[in-house]
Amino acid sequence: MSIFIRNILAAVPDAEKTVVTKPYHIYIKEGRISYMEECADGALSEKAESFMKDAEEVIEGKNRMVIPGFVNCHTHSYMSFMRNVADDLNFNDWLFGTISPIEDAMTDEDAYWGANLAILEMMSTGTTCFNDMQMNIHQTTRAVKESGMRAVISRGLVGSGNDEAGQMRLRQAYEERDAFADCDRLSFFLGPHAPYTCDEDFLRIVAAEGAKNDMGIHIHLSESRTEMENCYTRYGCTPIELAERAGLFDGPAIAAHCVYATDEDMEILAEKKVSVVTNPASNMKLGNGFAPIPKMMRAGVNVCLGTDGAASNNCLNMFHELSLLTLIHKGVGNTAQCISAKDGFRIATINGARALCMEKEIGSIEVGKKADLAILNIDTPSFMPNNNLIAGLSYSANGSEVETVIIDGKITMKNREFLTMDKERIYFEIRKIMKRMGLDEKEY
Amino acid sequence: MSIFIRNILAAVPDAEKTVVTKPYHIYIKEGRISYMEECADGALSEKAESFMKDAEEVIEGKNRMVIPGFVNCHTHSYMSFMRNVADDLNFNDWLFGTISPIEDAMTDEDAYWGANLAILEMMSTGTTCFNDMQMNIHQTTRAVKESGMRAVISRGLVGSGNDEAGQMRLRQAYEERDAFADCDRLSFFLGPHAPYTCDEDFLRIVAAEGAKNDMGIHIHLSESRTEMENCYTRYGCTPIELAERAGLFDGPAIAAHCVYATDEDMEILAEKKVSVVTNPASNMKLGNGFAPIPKMMRAGVNVCLGTDGAASNNCLNMFHELSLLTLIHKGVGNTAQCISAKDGFRIATINGARALCMEKEIGSIEVGKKADLAILNIDTPSFMPNNNLIAGLSYSANGSEVETVIIDGKITMKNREFLTMDKERIYFEIRKIMKRMGLDEKEY
Repeated sequence: MSIFIRNILAAVPDAEKTVVTKPYHIYIKEGRISYMEECADGALSEKAESFMKDAEEVIEGKNRMVIPGFVNCHTHSYMSFMRNVADDLNFNDWLFGTISPIEDAMTDEDAYWGANLAILEMMSTGTTCFNDMQMNIHQTTRAVKESGMRAVISRGLVGSGNDEAGQMRLRQAYEERDAFADCDRLSFFLGPHAPYTCDEDFLRIVAAEGAKNDMGIHIHLSESRTEMENCYTRYGCTPIELAERAGLFDGPAIAAHCVYATDEDMEILAEKKVSVVTNPASNMKLGNGFAPIPKMMRAGVNVCLGTDGAASNNCLNMFHELSLLTLIHKGVGNTAQCISAKDGFRIATINGARALCMEKEIGSIEVGKKADLAILNIDTPSFMPNNNLIAGLSYSANGSEVETVIIDGKITMKNREFLTMDKERIYFEIRKIMKRMGLDEKEY
Repeated sequence: MSIFIRNILAAVPDAEKTVVTKPYHIYIKEGRISYMEECADGALSEKAESFMKDAEEVIEGKNRMVIPGFVNCHTHSYMSFMRNVADDLNFNDWLFGTISPIEDAMTDEDAYWGANLAILEMMSTGTTCFNDMQMNIHQTTRAVKESGMRAVISRGLVGSGNDEAGQMRLRQAYEERDAFADCDRLSFFLGPHAPYTCDEDFLRIVAAEGAKNDMGIHIHLSESRTEMENCYTRYGCTPIELAERAGLFDGPAIAAHCVYATDEDMEILAEKKVSVVTNPASNMKLGNGFAPIPKMMRAGVNVCLGTDGAASNNCLNMFHELSLLTLIHKGVGNTAQCISAKDGFRIATINGARALCMEKEIGSIEVGKKADLAILNIDTPSFMPNNNLIAGLSYSANGSEVETVIIDGKITMKNREFLTMDKERIYFEIRKIMKRMGLDEKEY
């Protein structure tokens, strides 16, 4: 498929590796951005004109802005059917009292439809790649493959020493990677769940497996105060220190949350080039607090952004998360200058790509990169006046401005119509699950 | 105009004065909710059927939810054309360095178009009444009257003792109230700007004028640390104590911000029945921090919600503000239980109505109240599954679900088309202002 986007305001990297918005013609061919031409007055060069003629699809950029699709660096997409079922509960009551029993009753098909709902929501709000920890293999993966989305999948691993349960989950992780080797929008990390669900020996085994199989690590770390206290009691160190000594940081590693990271933890994270995914909505909603993100940025940590699952957020809208990221730390630190809109933009795009080992392929609008793009209508109250559009992304947009989405060079949403997913069928199946589980009986 | 809404999930007060969502038929006539009938199975009684036949407009409620329109209790709507012009700056640099010079160059027409843009944005995101402090008389007021919106307007008052400037502004406040006495969607408060722009003698004069003219007070209080320090230095008390001793709290009073309210301040606010408007986005964005809202709620203060102006937020979307309100205090207090979704709902609706002395007229869906309603499409990823819809308002919706808006019994937005405002003309005028002021020259 070839696409020509004519005279659109594009958010592109500038000389200082930050971002600037300028008018461009963009030509997309065979999945990649093959040509870009700056066009202050909208005029087309001969070359651009010939690309436009060749293109199977021409998108007019008037009153539109194009951004690299957001990279949602931490979620559990199957959880979408649990949206709004467990609110205003502390972490332990939320996880062990409400969510775990639902997960126990969940079938593979439920997980598949949950993942579909998540992808629908992410796509419609400009996310073109996500990093997922799933519990039911082949389900999120299948939904990603069918929907045209891009994702990195980790089968969630829970284990103790070399117990059979842990070993079985590891085998499933490889089985899944092999089963989907034909889909180049999918790649795979290993997902040891957390230090409170995996013991040190098992973490050590997973680290060795990751190194042997050239797979990155995706883990929850230092999310709650209880986790910190229990880790100190059991291991005499922080969860981040434990992960380091188990060898989990020796290859590419993604640590979700890190709300309670200490100064020493941050040194480890920076030195070992661990990517930290902050999930501001989830961390606040479960009463865990605020991760020390500005401090991590100063320490040189690669900070990225995630929504977490819908059961603890309750949305997978990266605009919402970006707004939180760029607002809350100003409140916490009593300074308006700690995370700018441009910082937020990088955190939500290129930093996420870097965490997933894809920074040469996605995360910015540059010739040669894969065409993973979101086109926004900026002729809206939220973007009016069309001034300082990067600030608009953080502070005034809400995600509904996303009109057209291109993933891997293919249009997956066009003028808010999903071209690769059946929205009505997904809603139908989600309603069916709620009914079966008796979750539709809850007071509205 | 008469409207019949058929079989819609309505967010209505329950016995405990909290909120519950149940299916209803709703009949609106002559500006008010004239009849409501619960309809678990969608069936129509004879009475409901006859209302439906009489109605000039029938709205089908399938996959829809109706809420009382949000009451945005603190904004400066003329500032909308300044959206995204001054970001990531501390309060003093923001106000005195950037915003004030733009205000100095602003004409009455600019303020009028700014207010129009604000109303467009508020209406499209479910706000049906707002409380505004304006600087250019007749401009926001004119936009409110023409647009079909409801508002309480305070002419911003700045003065020192009985200086002529202050007296002139007071005369303008009355002049404006009298000029718009024919529009019953408009009412008027007096708006002494803040303790750092009005001295104690002037505050005292305004308090007396308010009492004499039966007008409420709308003031900024305890917004920044600098304001606190300067007030201590000058008056030996907090801004809230100063306002009390000047008599500003002897009648209906609305205090915006109160970020730095002390325990003693909260006692005063509760005892004097002052309504506090929290503006979470603005307070974070300018580096002022988090108001102690859960503590104020426990102290019995009537807490309401506002967006502040677009220059410091940068959006007037109450869904955004509601999400912040119900998330941030969980992070600050490390508890998931401090402000529930239902608390947030009341704060954004009936508490705001109470602050504006309109709780008997608006703020909830009840027979006899004015029909100020927002109808949401809940057949969206953000609301799916349709479970616990009040949680959805806070945690997963973004405002784009608002499809139809009714104010004073008239449809002002229908299926996202504005019936009472000219969107294109407003955008055109806003672009013209930006060009004239040279603000379109900023790097995008």
